[in-house]
Amino acid sequence: MTRPQTPDVTTRRWARGRWEDVNDRLAAEEPLQVLLDSAPLSVLMRTPGHDVELALGLLWAERVITEPRQVLRVRVSAEAGEPEGDLVHGDLVEANQVDVHLGAGAGPRPQRTFLSSSACGVCGTTTIEDLAQDFPLLPPGPEVDPSVLVGLADRLRARQSLFESTGGLHAAGLFTTAGENVVVREDVGRHNAVDKVVGRSLLDGRLPCSDLVLVVSGRGGYEIVQKAVAAGIPVVAAVGAPSSLAVATARRFNLTLAGFVRDDRFNVYSSPERLSP
Amino acid sequence: MTRPQTPDVTTRRWARGRWEDVNDRLAAEEPLQVLLDSAPLSVLMRTPGHDVELALGLLWAERVITEPRQVLRVRVSAEAGEPEGDLVHGDLVEANQVDVHLGAGAGPRPQRTFLSSSACGVCGTTTIEDLAQDFPLLPPGPEVDPSVLVGLADRLRARQSLFESTGGLHAAGLFTTAGENVVVREDVGRHNAVDKVVGRSLLDGRLPCSDLVLVVSGRGGYEIVQKAVAAGIPVVAAVGAPSSLAVATARRFNLTLAGFVRDDRFNVYSSPERLSP
Repeated sequence: MTRPQTPDVTTRRWARGRWEDVNDRLAAEEPLQVLLDSAPLSVLMRTPGHDVELALGLLWAERVITEPRQVLRVRVSAEAGEPEGDLVHGDLVEANQVDVHLGAGAGPRPQRTFLSSSACGVCGTTTIEDLAQDFPLLPPGPEVDPSVLVGLADRLRARQSLFESTGGLHAAGLFTTAGENVVVREDVGRHNAVDKVVGRSLLDGRLPCSDLVLVVSGRGGYEIVQKAVAAGIPVVAAVGAPSSLAVATARRFNLTLAGFVRDDRFNVYSSPERLSP
Repeated sequence: MTRPQTPDVTTRRWARGRWEDVNDRLAAEEPLQVLLDSAPLSVLMRTPGHDVELALGLLWAERVITEPRQVLRVRVSAEAGEPEGDLVHGDLVEANQVDVHLGAGAGPRPQRTFLSSSACGVCGTTTIEDLAQDFPLLPPGPEVDPSVLVGLADRLRARQSLFESTGGLHAAGLFTTAGENVVVREDVGRHNAVDKVVGRSLLDGRLPCSDLVLVVSGRGGYEIVQKAVAAGIPVVAAVGAPSSLAVATARRFNLTLAGFVRDDRFNVYSSPERLSP
């Protein structure tokens, strides 16, 4: 069965003070394990499809491949013994490994700039269950008024001093359920902005942040939700779209994930019970 | 001297058929080396500032730190013997290393999900010069008409079939100087979309892509320019803002980097000679 690049999901939309059920399509995000001559090299979070191109392009950028003829064989496969359900609602997925075999003249195996991976395989479900061994489920609460949540994107933007001058920085901010800002950090990397916010919270003795809302300026990918789970943050609001793996992770941990928080509306993909009607 | 988070740069803006010189501010992007108990752990591309928070937040997310009291000491330092000029025009920078010392009870040193780094130090200049050992400067040409370049963002968007349905995917595309599309790929990761485009080019025997323009849907960071240099692509057009390290790298390799390619205008940050007047 072909893995969908845009899986459907049922979600709730809050718009101008009212809730409605809607169907939404997500950007698929799943881990891909790249092997070089059958040895694990890297785990990438990517949208499934064109995986051979992805692996070859990455190896070209890292100068492991310098001539097309160095590529002897590329094998695409599902992990042995790891059948996997679709991360959102049940379709089987196909392949999560690309093994590139290189011949004479290829460059050395890279020692840096790659994510190193554990030797065991990866798939979306494995990724989430690994995380569940490290972090507890988020407890119920707090209650957040949707009319407060919907305004947090504008409040974050108002505090992005660097973005205003460059147009090029992501931001992450923590807010109380009353909409008061606790901390904002900006960075070229959205994940860095979240790490800075969590690091500040650690220094201030505020972890776990169990009564706060994390607002991010861009999309809500897996990495953002993972960092929120680690910091005990129960509600994440993203200005942009969530990914399939972010939604699946949020559902597993009872984290309330809202996306497209813009103007007078947002969608909520998991644990809507924290958003009082 | 404090490292600027938004260094100034002189650039040229093309708007509605006319060129003008403008001053622009860039989002700073520079590598940070994170050490754990004095051993190199990871190299991150980040916006300087709040680096201790960044390192601690990252170690928290990876469950290396599980209690604030495990942090014994954090040392922030410039690399020994590596004074560095500002990447765009000359201010000295301060620190590019954070060394976190942990005490009893801290988790194991992570084996995965971290970028592994070489043992030698990193700074922006080192990063660019390392790249220069691997890849040649881009030769002159081709000439690109600004009135063609300015329309490529819309042409890319028109081919983003997945974005339309999810609102959550980045795209990268190669175009001829006449504005014809060669290939488009979409992914939750902008860098993955570029890798897929380059991988496709490798499979099609099209590398180096010395007559083509790479268009990316988001910002133009270091990673995008690095991959373009590796693929021999002489012109990169980003819908969003470039970073300081992207501009410095583009200038080092004679790559034409345009940013904010939207509507009827764009800025060009390096090698404007390819854009015929």
